[in-house]
Amino acid sequence: MIADWLNDQIKTPSSQVANLAAERRQQLTKPPGSLGRLEETAINLGALQGREKPGVERVHIAVFAADHGVAASGVSAFSQEVTVQMVANFAAGGAAISVLAKSLGATLEVINVGTAIDPGEMPGVISDRAGDGTANLHHEDAMTQEQLYRAMDAGRSSVVRAVEAGSDLFIGGDMGIANTTASAAIGCALLQCEPHELAGPGTGLDKAGVSHKAEVIRQALERYDRLHEQPLEALRCVGGFEVAALAGAYMACGQRGVPVLVDGYIATVAALVAVRYQPALREWLIFSHRSAEPGHSAMLKALAAEPLLDLSMRLGEGSGAATAVPLLRLACDLHNGMATFADAGVSEG
Amino acid sequence: MIADWLNDQIKTPSSQVANLAAERRQQLTKPPGSLGRLEETAINLGALQGREKPGVERVHIAVFAADHGVAASGVSAFSQEVTVQMVANFAAGGAAISVLAKSLGATLEVINVGTAIDPGEMPGVISDRAGDGTANLHHEDAMTQEQLYRAMDAGRSSVVRAVEAGSDLFIGGDMGIANTTASAAIGCALLQCEPHELAGPGTGLDKAGVSHKAEVIRQALERYDRLHEQPLEALRCVGGFEVAALAGAYMACGQRGVPVLVDGYIATVAALVAVRYQPALREWLIFSHRSAEPGHSAMLKALAAEPLLDLSMRLGEGSGAATAVPLLRLACDLHNGMATFADAGVSEG
Repeated sequence: MIADWLNDQIKTPSSQVANLAAERRQQLTKPPGSLGRLEETAINLGALQGREKPGVERVHIAVFAADHGVAASGVSAFSQEVTVQMVANFAAGGAAISVLAKSLGATLEVINVGTAIDPGEMPGVISDRAGDGTANLHHEDAMTQEQLYRAMDAGRSSVVRAVEAGSDLFIGGDMGIANTTASAAIGCALLQCEPHELAGPGTGLDKAGVSHKAEVIRQALERYDRLHEQPLEALRCVGGFEVAALAGAYMACGQRGVPVLVDGYIATVAALVAVRYQPALREWLIFSHRSAEPGHSAMLKALAAEPLLDLSMRLGEGSGAATAVPLLRLACDLHNGMATFADAGVSEG
Repeated sequence: MIADWLNDQIKTPSSQVANLAAERRQQLTKPPGSLGRLEETAINLGALQGREKPGVERVHIAVFAADHGVAASGVSAFSQEVTVQMVANFAAGGAAISVLAKSLGATLEVINVGTAIDPGEMPGVISDRAGDGTANLHHEDAMTQEQLYRAMDAGRSSVVRAVEAGSDLFIGGDMGIANTTASAAIGCALLQCEPHELAGPGTGLDKAGVSHKAEVIRQALERYDRLHEQPLEALRCVGGFEVAALAGAYMACGQRGVPVLVDGYIATVAALVAVRYQPALREWLIFSHRSAEPGHSAMLKALAAEPLLDLSMRLGEGSGAATAVPLLRLACDLHNGMATFADAGVSEG
């Protein structure tokens, strides 16, 4: 088997650091709890990073792009050629995630994990392809076992590079025309819910388009039984290469001790797969935002996740997670930099 | 009358820039609307700043500190000496807003607009005092007409300094033991609602403390009639110097064309007073966060405001607004920096 690493153990966050950080939090010059979720965020990051003074200076953003055979079933408002065009746009600096990465001073990796057409060498793009797009999940398994492992390994490889660069935080992004269909299908399989509950407009389907998308998912899932007990099999049968890469990356992050800031709909499905496979991974995931894609909330709920932002974003690419990075940074600055009551000579009540 | 400026006209945001920005938004390489509230935020900032490429590099944060006579009625978990101690902490860099201002590269002004005891000259603190704290609103008018105008003028003066420094954005913060009581009282007067609807735990009252606080407000408001039609009179009778300074600052921002990022509970009450007095001011206000203080939502609703963040913060000082600054910056970066479909050679559908 080419993917033994999937069963490597997930690290345990430091409860010692968490306790020290929680103690410090009570001494800072503010009413207890008055910085709300920024307080718990800093403590959590400290426990994950094993550092009393957490920080997110070095952010690694990896955007995985791939195509989906199911695009042929008319489930997206955009045509498949856009995937490669956007890969070029990511690398050239014109896409949302490119702008965000630059603003944040983050490293941006663009990884072609399987566009339908192999564009060959592209400047600024890593080619780590599991195939020429997935098969059409409407009618057949989206990928082979080998393709699944190759795609997950592309995610792991990105995390290895992140660790080598000393990254404080990992963000995975997605690009792939029709990938909300694959993601909704995985979500339905794992959460055992009806396609209409998780299928949404994606990049801009109208009501009839959403109904058709749900019907495609329903027909696809009819072929399978008990997928909810087999997260990796659900990923293989109705998933996508970029979703598999994200799931692999998240597992590698938990194994290597790198905190993950999870993006929106596609990323959360990948997180759901990874957590179902390795439940201990859940602690390594910080959820950045609630997507405008309606099915996202059900997935977040299944992961007991309450994201930091709710700005009606629904772009993918890691853009929601990138937007939340400054909140993590400010949370750390406050935790690390505020005076204590004793330092400042302020009365505690 | 010493406050003629209060009736100076509020500027009109540029609809021309708003139209140009809305057109550009449609051409950027992403599905329409997929960056959610970041899109409208950038367009709004552009219209307010009159710039096709909006920006929030130079942020002016003014924290107004004052004391409240009503503290003597036992409405706060902290004692009044803390106000001056915190003023020193703001200036020394140890408070939450100090840390946030430093992280954001923002200018931080600390203004003593009327602590109970005049601490004399303090390094890094501007003394612009309307009095030695307010009178106890539980039993009498919180301030005289002259004190009201002096406090509002302290706010205006801060905005004059902000404009001279070329600020792109104004944030007002508050510090004052017992100021949630004064703010709830103003809110009840203007929104004609019951004290228990707007009185909350503030810095940490228990249930009995909150009931007592509501009763103090109820007794205070019994002395007055038709305050809801007289926003400045409500501010004078049951308000606080720092609330008045914030209201004055917001009006001056609208008159001079400086966008305001409104903080939480206290700041929103000040905004409510100012907008009731000059309704055209509403357009200049961007709301940063929903406070954990329960009455905040009713005030936001009265201003038709949907804040950007909801992180259970309830500190004041301008801390919630400061936390939202990076969202405004990223919104501008995306709007200004993303490639168009034509630039990037990406198909539009």
